[in-house]
Amino acid sequence: MPSVAVVGCGLTKFGKTDKGLIELLAEAGLKAIDDAGLDGIQFDDVLVANMASGEFNGLSGIANALVGELSLEPAAAIKIENTSGSGGAAVYVGWQAIASGKSEYVLVVGGEKMSTKSSGETAEIIASLTHLEERVHGITLPSLAALSARQYMQFYGAPREALAKVAVKNHDNALLNPLAQFHKKITIEDVLNSPIVCDPLRLYDYCPITDGAAAVVLTTLENAKRLTDNPVVISGIGFATDYYSIQTRKRLDEFPAVRRAAEKAYRMAGKKPSDIHVVEVHDMATILEILQCEDLGFFSKGEGWKAVLEDKTALDGELPVNTSGGLKAKGHPIGATGVAQVAEIFMQLQERCGERQVDAKCGLTCNIGGYGNGVVVTILEVMRPC
Amino acid sequence: MPSVAVVGCGLTKFGKTDKGLIELLAEAGLKAIDDAGLDGIQFDDVLVANMASGEFNGLSGIANALVGELSLEPAAAIKIENTSGSGGAAVYVGWQAIASGKSEYVLVVGGEKMSTKSSGETAEIIASLTHLEERVHGITLPSLAALSARQYMQFYGAPREALAKVAVKNHDNALLNPLAQFHKKITIEDVLNSPIVCDPLRLYDYCPITDGAAAVVLTTLENAKRLTDNPVVISGIGFATDYYSIQTRKRLDEFPAVRRAAEKAYRMAGKKPSDIHVVEVHDMATILEILQCEDLGFFSKGEGWKAVLEDKTALDGELPVNTSGGLKAKGHPIGATGVAQVAEIFMQLQERCGERQVDAKCGLTCNIGGYGNGVVVTILEVMRPC
Repeated sequence: MPSVAVVGCGLTKFGKTDKGLIELLAEAGLKAIDDAGLDGIQFDDVLVANMASGEFNGLSGIANALVGELSLEPAAAIKIENTSGSGGAAVYVGWQAIASGKSEYVLVVGGEKMSTKSSGETAEIIASLTHLEERVHGITLPSLAALSARQYMQFYGAPREALAKVAVKNHDNALLNPLAQFHKKITIEDVLNSPIVCDPLRLYDYCPITDGAAAVVLTTLENAKRLTDNPVVISGIGFATDYYSIQTRKRLDEFPAVRRAAEKAYRMAGKKPSDIHVVEVHDMATILEILQCEDLGFFSKGEGWKAVLEDKTALDGELPVNTSGGLKAKGHPIGATGVAQVAEIFMQLQERCGERQVDAKCGLTCNIGGYGNGVVVTILEVMRPC
Repeated sequence: MPSVAVVGCGLTKFGKTDKGLIELLAEAGLKAIDDAGLDGIQFDDVLVANMASGEFNGLSGIANALVGELSLEPAAAIKIENTSGSGGAAVYVGWQAIASGKSEYVLVVGGEKMSTKSSGETAEIIASLTHLEERVHGITLPSLAALSARQYMQFYGAPREALAKVAVKNHDNALLNPLAQFHKKITIEDVLNSPIVCDPLRLYDYCPITDGAAAVVLTTLENAKRLTDNPVVISGIGFATDYYSIQTRKRLDEFPAVRRAAEKAYRMAGKKPSDIHVVEVHDMATILEILQCEDLGFFSKGEGWKAVLEDKTALDGELPVNTSGGLKAKGHPIGATGVAQVAEIFMQLQERCGERQVDAKCGLTCNIGGYGNGVVVTILEVMRPC
């Protein structure tokens, strides 16, 4: 099985824009192709991660539209959907394409153009991923996160401030990311005084609505060695699902699918949590960053909140988490997120992150579809010249 | 690279139903698992081909929903979308998963529940795959097929009756397929007297609106040999795109993406058109069956219509085409179609087609996304015991 490498990435500015979905996808895709130095190369596959182009933009067949926009015919073109985990799923499919030996160059582009709809319509589109029998009772992703937060705080004695600190840290990181949606320093008091969304979580505990796109170019390690002096390989990748119905789960303060996906990725890479130097997790709400850091094995169960308060996950901490600003402050254009996470780790490993650069040779991403329904964990490693 | 085999299939009845989308997907999936004799097996991937669950059914994350319905956690769950070519794209991704060595058992389920919307709403959902700059002028898939028919008839002197004969043949075949939507014998006069949709094409030239699902189980050839005496392998598979914008294409009476996808599949399988014994093509409109048969290399350009009139593509002809009844008479639940095509060829090669059985050791499917935008061609072969 050929080793699979990342050789380029590109992102649009995240935030609200007048650009259309296909334009955003094309911008990120072109940047990634340029970044890889592969202009003019015939790609085998163009994979587009996106949740709801039909509902948000009245568009289907967007992978073919992107191929047309980038003149990449006759590349295979497929849209990959796993709700908010679409980006991770597309990287997973792209990895397979190279690993099967069938494909040599794969362009993975994720994007979402969400600002076309009112917040009520957007909430309805996003709620379409919940179980119908639970949706009728009014369950939404924000309300599930609040239930998780309540259970975690009560069970492990975590203070409300620890959750707020996640938002503060991620806003601090986003200040150093020119493409992030928010460039605004906030304090714990700002979070605690922001409007209640679902008690105990408040507006500043949640990621925003975002337009944007992100892309990575995948190829064989053999090609990567010709293209760059410090190739980055996907040394581990795991995908796992959990019960679709939330009422079937034992607890809401842990994500078994994160654990299972991570186990697969660690096993494949021959790594353990302490080998990881930088992490991008799926902080749709502040509590989720803490839960994932525990389920990924970085901190013991119930201890993750302490690591946040002790600045262990800060940019200069022992394990920097969400150096990009995370979903919270970089923004969360649904289909883009899993791809943007891989792009951030790729850039960190290649030492291209400017002011937010950390010291790392091995990084990990955790992208979640639904509410812990389907999870993709990737482990990336840089192979520096000796 | 491990050889990839099909070891089971399952289909729901095609037509209008009160069943929901997830129920249809689960029914087809369970049938395929039973058919493969793999009840209780842990699947690595569950791939769901579907175009528009959001627009038709208010559902996203349907791959995870299906995993939940079939208790297949923690299998990876991904929705694959390539408009009407979603099924072929999902088989392509499933093939890669096995070929990469990462996955041992993959369940591919395609389905669409379309009867939830009015025909006007449905037309709008389907038109979402056309280029925005062309859509504003009112272009639709049925109108494009009519332009192709007009160009083909004028250029090659094909009589209107030849197109009608495709519908007659496929209705004849569907009479022998218990799961087909239509069980109604029609005549050439019936087609020519049916209401005009887009001149020169009439109602009976087009496939209907359909609810339904189809599934196949993929695994390694090694596993297949243990499971069955006559394993069927996917010996060739090709995926190619054409210009997204229709005005960029040279002609409308040929599909370059069909040719390119077929070239890849033939090369991989080491086969030529004359080696193929049975075919399922994407007859969204009657003219499309003729064009594909030419672009796949079965008949010279401009000669395909003669083959139809001479009954060469009939059930007892030299190359039976659409033994299932095709999209025209079996029905076209969009996401299901590419999977249903592979299921039909699989059953033909395993001699399980009852009254519509033909003599075949090698078959081919051609599944089209958009209007020739993205095409997947697969070649399947049975390995009979000597």
